[in-house]
Amino acid sequence: MSAEKGNKTCTLEFQPDELKVEVPLGTTILDAARKAGVFIDSLCGGEGVCGKCRVIVREGEVVGGTTDFFTRHEIREGYILACEARIAGDLVVEVPPESRIRARIIEVDAGEKRLSEIAVLERRPTILDPLVKKYYLEVPAPSLSYNRADLDRLEHALRHAVGGGEFQMGLKVIRTLPDVLRQAGHRVTATTAYRGALTEITEVAPGDTCKRNLAVAVDVGTTTIVTYLVDLQTGKTLGTAAKYNSQAIYGADVIHRILWCSEQPDGLQQLHDRIIEDINLLIRELQNQLRISVSDISVIAAAGNTTMMHLLLGINPTWIRPEPYVGATYQPPPFRAAEVGLTINSRGLLYSLPCVSAFVGADITAGVMAIGMAEAERPRMLIDVGTNGEVAIGNKDWMVCASASAGPAFEGATTRHGMWAMRGAIDHIRGWSGYSRFSYSTIGDEPPAGLCGTAYVDLLAELLLMGVIDKSGRFNPQCGLENLREGTDGQREFVIVGAGERGASRDLVITQADIENLLRAKGAIYAATKVLLKSLGLKASDLEEVMIAGAFGHYLDMENAVFIGLLPDVDPHKLRFAGNTSAAGAKMALLNRERFAEAKRLAGSMTYFELSTDPTFMEEFTSACFLPHTHIEEFPSLQARISNR
Amino acid sequence: MSAEKGNKTCTLEFQPDELKVEVPLGTTILDAARKAGVFIDSLCGGEGVCGKCRVIVREGEVVGGTTDFFTRHEIREGYILACEARIAGDLVVEVPPESRIRARIIEVDAGEKRLSEIAVLERRPTILDPLVKKYYLEVPAPSLSYNRADLDRLEHALRHAVGGGEFQMGLKVIRTLPDVLRQAGHRVTATTAYRGALTEITEVAPGDTCKRNLAVAVDVGTTTIVTYLVDLQTGKTLGTAAKYNSQAIYGADVIHRILWCSEQPDGLQQLHDRIIEDINLLIRELQNQLRISVSDISVIAAAGNTTMMHLLLGINPTWIRPEPYVGATYQPPPFRAAEVGLTINSRGLLYSLPCVSAFVGADITAGVMAIGMAEAERPRMLIDVGTNGEVAIGNKDWMVCASASAGPAFEGATTRHGMWAMRGAIDHIRGWSGYSRFSYSTIGDEPPAGLCGTAYVDLLAELLLMGVIDKSGRFNPQCGLENLREGTDGQREFVIVGAGERGASRDLVITQADIENLLRAKGAIYAATKVLLKSLGLKASDLEEVMIAGAFGHYLDMENAVFIGLLPDVDPHKLRFAGNTSAAGAKMALLNRERFAEAKRLAGSMTYFELSTDPTFMEEFTSACFLPHTHIEEFPSLQARISNR
Repeated sequence: MSAEKGNKTCTLEFQPDELKVEVPLGTTILDAARKAGVFIDSLCGGEGVCGKCRVIVREGEVVGGTTDFFTRHEIREGYILACEARIAGDLVVEVPPESRIRARIIEVDAGEKRLSEIAVLERRPTILDPLVKKYYLEVPAPSLSYNRADLDRLEHALRHAVGGGEFQMGLKVIRTLPDVLRQAGHRVTATTAYRGALTEITEVAPGDTCKRNLAVAVDVGTTTIVTYLVDLQTGKTLGTAAKYNSQAIYGADVIHRILWCSEQPDGLQQLHDRIIEDINLLIRELQNQLRISVSDISVIAAAGNTTMMHLLLGINPTWIRPEPYVGATYQPPPFRAAEVGLTINSRGLLYSLPCVSAFVGADITAGVMAIGMAEAERPRMLIDVGTNGEVAIGNKDWMVCASASAGPAFEGATTRHGMWAMRGAIDHIRGWSGYSRFSYSTIGDEPPAGLCGTAYVDLLAELLLMGVIDKSGRFNPQCGLENLREGTDGQREFVIVGAGERGASRDLVITQADIENLLRAKGAIYAATKVLLKSLGLKASDLEEVMIAGAFGHYLDMENAVFIGLLPDVDPHKLRFAGNTSAAGAKMALLNRERFAEAKRLAGSMTYFELSTDPTFMEEFTSACFLPHTHIEEFPSLQARISNR
Repeated sequence: MSAEKGNKTCTLEFQPDELKVEVPLGTTILDAARKAGVFIDSLCGGEGVCGKCRVIVREGEVVGGTTDFFTRHEIREGYILACEARIAGDLVVEVPPESRIRARIIEVDAGEKRLSEIAVLERRPTILDPLVKKYYLEVPAPSLSYNRADLDRLEHALRHAVGGGEFQMGLKVIRTLPDVLRQAGHRVTATTAYRGALTEITEVAPGDTCKRNLAVAVDVGTTTIVTYLVDLQTGKTLGTAAKYNSQAIYGADVIHRILWCSEQPDGLQQLHDRIIEDINLLIRELQNQLRISVSDISVIAAAGNTTMMHLLLGINPTWIRPEPYVGATYQPPPFRAAEVGLTINSRGLLYSLPCVSAFVGADITAGVMAIGMAEAERPRMLIDVGTNGEVAIGNKDWMVCASASAGPAFEGATTRHGMWAMRGAIDHIRGWSGYSRFSYSTIGDEPPAGLCGTAYVDLLAELLLMGVIDKSGRFNPQCGLENLREGTDGQREFVIVGAGERGASRDLVITQADIENLLRAKGAIYAATKVLLKSLGLKASDLEEVMIAGAFGHYLDMENAVFIGLLPDVDPHKLRFAGNTSAAGAKMALLNRERFAEAKRLAGSMTYFELSTDPTFMEEFTSACFLPHTHIEEFPSLQARISNR
């Protein structure tokens, strides 16, 4: 990863940005791009395995680099992997659009609704009692008979309006008090922020500004960052903005990013800076969309996995990765947003939703709170499918949770033509037309560039039904379909969309290795649900509902997900898409301080099962790496369907 | 005060510092010195009335400036008042030692004990329960069966050591946690700071550092700043350092400094910077004296009058001055010392002792707490003689206080040869030798340079006994002493020490105007005690004791103070010197958090009497501007002595 030492330096120019950077001979193009601040996509974080960091060398010489990921035509054009190509002299490098796409702001309204879907909020009507409130006060002017200090008079008036409580105020605000009070004729608006037993007065502004009390809820995803601008006066969401997480250049998943922090001297700072820049960019986008002033954004609430929460706050996540998997803090208090670099009101606070453990993060706590798990009589399950598949089960009396290391197969990595669920990704595959062609849809109706996770769920189901693969996922050479062929690497692969059909130079295929990775991913998640249910002495049928969280759930064909053994076999009406529960929980906490307190209680009371060292889990995992499962009796509804074949 | 506008600039060089500054033509030398950072003494803040800012013009021309304060010889040498002389071209100016003395650190051990006397502490034995404590913890290392977050494990171990409570921690400290814990093998010392209901963990350091837990108590006086280095482990004071308050260049008393803040664009910042620099200088001095590391100073507690507390925190004191006399806050919470610029441990806190009102400050609250007023059965009185004479009376059931605008006559201003109680000041005058000479002593046994407040108390008593002045303070031309003469201004004056006797060019004299100012000062303070007593229906004889606070009390001849009617006429054994009660209270609060909480309760419960608009006060004041008083029956012990004359 690191550049070879050398005294000689070369100049790189990146097109189309025309950014130049000076780096030592032998540096990889990817490292040079990071230094220059040029975004190049990279799912594997620079290990040469994902094949996403495609760049074109326009001028100059490089050393090294595989040809595996390119067609003959592309190689002639100068395509190379940025993480593998080492600089042998001055270069001009073009970063093609497909390697840049995630740097941009995603237009949420125009087809990326899945990112911002928080309809689950409607399940739990929230009384408006926001984390930050504004009070218009007519503070009595001082007189000889009432000559208490400015702060005393203000607090007295505020206590009257709020109905009691203890206040605190920072020095910077106290310093503004004498002038603000007098210039405003003692008519001011006090902004108050919830801090448990205390209330902080974060700002005292002239006049009545109560109507300008905005908040940002942010879902800090490993892949995608989604922000919501919320009006705390009305509870309404005014706008949404999202973008891919720029930390991706340091690794697609949390493990690679933790490694980057542990191994690079400035690694933590770089990752922290990227996430802060991303959120600030989104806040500016919301600002421009809605023509609001940044000083009216009083507060920001964030939820994400434990590693993301560490990186957001600039806390070293190193010890999350190795056994026994420990974070620095799971329930950080609110901090000044400006202290971490977020550009809202300079006195505004950043509230972090609480995490449960190193691998069950604030996104899960937020989700569990948002779906009202703790209000249910009968047990509910929440599943978040990702590189780590998190599962929580609980009701009003108890809650358990676990995280399975599923690997990033459903996230676009470790599959030949996998990609994130972005424009151009096949999201659904709907049956075989019989002419060696699948019927499918893509996100944004664009020409298919690859497959996202939900498409792989459909694909596995279809291939199994067509007899192309067997229960163990192995290709059946007797299936009689010409799409099944031997690839250039000598392994079998199945053509999903031909190059001609999609107007590209390459066929989209699924390989035997892809299938193995997908089976391991779905097996791990299923095994996690199984271990939790078993520990409680429950069966899947005891569950009142199974909620699928995250963007993944948006396009997921639930029936196929059960069919391949990813989800437990429950009544279909119990399977529900929950939307972005991470953001929903963050918004809910913003709007109601009791919900925020509830999230903290939930996080503290959930029993966490460590699966990585659990022999039961290993057993369940092995049994679950079949389609749908070694023990077909766990899938009663499928028994008939499968035996019919 | 402000410089005349002009395009032409001149260069000033200050000797002996060799500091140069470029300023517009017409600027005063004093303003230029402020700009250059050169300290020139000034009691009146640049109004041409105190005559303290004496400088010598060595080269170049100036415009303006009185000759009143100088001898013919001095005028020939180039002496001039820096506040009056306007620059008419390039200059070289020498600042003589007498105009620089207050810039230096005062050697407390070598004769300035009066500044640091806090023996009153022995009256209230204090159980060691300091505001900041250190705990050595052996935090359990994480394991799969105990994989709680770093902060959770630390708090758990700390809660065990402390015995419960809620903790809070800043982001900067949380960021250090993962590395500190692991590098130290989980053996760390947690520093905890009292924040009322919460305890803040301000630092987590490797190993056992419990023995290095130091604190600074600081008395932020208008005139003098006194610091104490306190060992919080043992309760002992390790060292003391003091200096004159550098803010003096902007005015000797709080009113002039408030005006400076109100009228100068950067006035507040300048005054804030000076006080912070002074305290930091003293902390460095303590550091050097005692060879300690600044990071071992965990906390600082400060007491001073309300204006000083505002300036220390950088809060605008403007509204303290005009009616209805209102500060920004009287009970500021603890702030990060670094936030105000104090150089102790970067996470250390600054605790402000609480004020009662605009003119009864934290120094009085500290004093009232230190003398244990709230524990007394019978009422006690605390008097602090200064530009404002503060008086508090109370017992365990009630407390009242007031502040009388006495003027700075006892502080060295508004008297011809008055000076602060510094080396060379006559502190005591002990009778008339009969040969036109007083017997007297000076601070530090140096040749007499002027008179400090306590000397004027003695002098008034002596002059009254000698018949040089009458009850109303008027010189008696029939007294037959040659020391009484007509001054150059045509007014009568009395020679206290002849020029020859003191080896100087000028006689030390007291003028009729001096006496009037002194009578007004003592009258105001006495009237304040009277109004309070009256309001309570008490007589002076009901008081259990009368404690005199501050350096003034150190040299004060109590008998003379009663004789001139400054102090009420109580049994002599009830009159006690209380020492630096401001510092004593600050130290007491450092050592015991319940004492700090008590100070806050006291400040909140004291009933404040506003005297400036009180007709009773005006009446009492008028009656008190006699020696000892218009109504001699208020001084029963003197009736015999006076009628004997």
